[in-house]
Amino acid sequence: MAEKGISQAVIGRLPRYYRYLGELKTQGVERISSHELSKLMHVTASQIRQDFNNFGGFGQQGYGYNVLYLHNEIGNLLGIHKKHDMILIGAGKLGQAVVGYINAKDMPYSFKAAFDINKDLIGTKVGDLPVMSMEDMPSYALENHIEIAALTVPRTVAVETAEKLVACNIRAIWNFAHIDLRVPEHIEVENVHLLDSLMRLSYNLQRHQDAEAKR
Amino acid sequence: MAEKGISQAVIGRLPRYYRYLGELKTQGVERISSHELSKLMHVTASQIRQDFNNFGGFGQQGYGYNVLYLHNEIGNLLGIHKKHDMILIGAGKLGQAVVGYINAKDMPYSFKAAFDINKDLIGTKVGDLPVMSMEDMPSYALENHIEIAALTVPRTVAVETAEKLVACNIRAIWNFAHIDLRVPEHIEVENVHLLDSLMRLSYNLQRHQDAEAKR
Repeated sequence: MAEKGISQAVIGRLPRYYRYLGELKTQGVERISSHELSKLMHVTASQIRQDFNNFGGFGQQGYGYNVLYLHNEIGNLLGIHKKHDMILIGAGKLGQAVVGYINAKDMPYSFKAAFDINKDLIGTKVGDLPVMSMEDMPSYALENHIEIAALTVPRTVAVETAEKLVACNIRAIWNFAHIDLRVPEHIEVENVHLLDSLMRLSYNLQRHQDAEAKR
Repeated sequence: MAEKGISQAVIGRLPRYYRYLGELKTQGVERISSHELSKLMHVTASQIRQDFNNFGGFGQQGYGYNVLYLHNEIGNLLGIHKKHDMILIGAGKLGQAVVGYINAKDMPYSFKAAFDINKDLIGTKVGDLPVMSMEDMPSYALENHIEIAALTVPRTVAVETAEKLVACNIRAIWNFAHIDLRVPEHIEVENVHLLDSLMRLSYNLQRHQDAEAKR
């Protein structure tokens, strides 16, 4: 569970601020007003100020925000000052894609090992990572103080696999299985439910077309 | 843009209702009260009733909801009564994983073709799908009345690729590139920003650990 008082909606917007500020930094922009940032990000300036006020405001609004400072501060909130070694559970196509995507980014997150129960996959590689047997996962996770695991296993085994992760002191599960995990309060779960995402797109498309048909 | 008056937060919850109702249907459950559904889904019964009231309520609360009817109705809202042929733009690892994931589901969404600019990939296959040249995309999309495209290209080319899709009457873009697309109002975009998702997880983990350290 996150800190009380800051909604998950606000937290959900932090990575997007971080991304835009990173781009401004790359472009050499030193200061930006909430109004300029609002035009760039297509959100209202008042939303930006409200969001930032949850974290103390990040500096004077009249002079605009210091881009470098703001980027750093939001990065710190997101835990980006710290290296995060992660493991992958499920070395199939989706897992391979997730590892490739994340390990290619210049970010403090990186996968260090992959685990699977499929004997055909054990001993192969996912990118540079060795695929090990799930039997070796507990000792690896404990010895390397792994806190974050990505779960890219079929939904039929996701719940039991999550229980194994919890038993190895994993604190955060990035869940790609299309099922809601039931884990103890002290475990963070972030879901990437691809089918739910596609259904939302399909819903919005349908409504749009219905509205057009009524015109 | 979706129908006015129904928030994207409510719409975002519809696929989850659909998923749970599908499971209840499979288990042979015929009726369920908002209270029982609330316990199962770990949301309040009042939230469920409020969400459903956006769509006319779906039947009497006193007698509980008819599972089959409710599953169908939500499916209709989500556009699931209709077949959706889709195309993949970007046949790299992430694209391959997305096609494998979606085409394996027993759902009306399916990818019919994949396109890439990489000559090494053109002529190969993604699952059962031929990978074609991006030059052939416009005629394919127009002839087959494709409405939904998944965009799994690098962020550096995502914006220009989205413009090409819009020019071919694509109405909905499922965007996996880590950049916000700028498209005309009549185009729906649903983002799967994997890095943003991982950063949210990292934020919540960090806050949790900070709170524990203070105890």
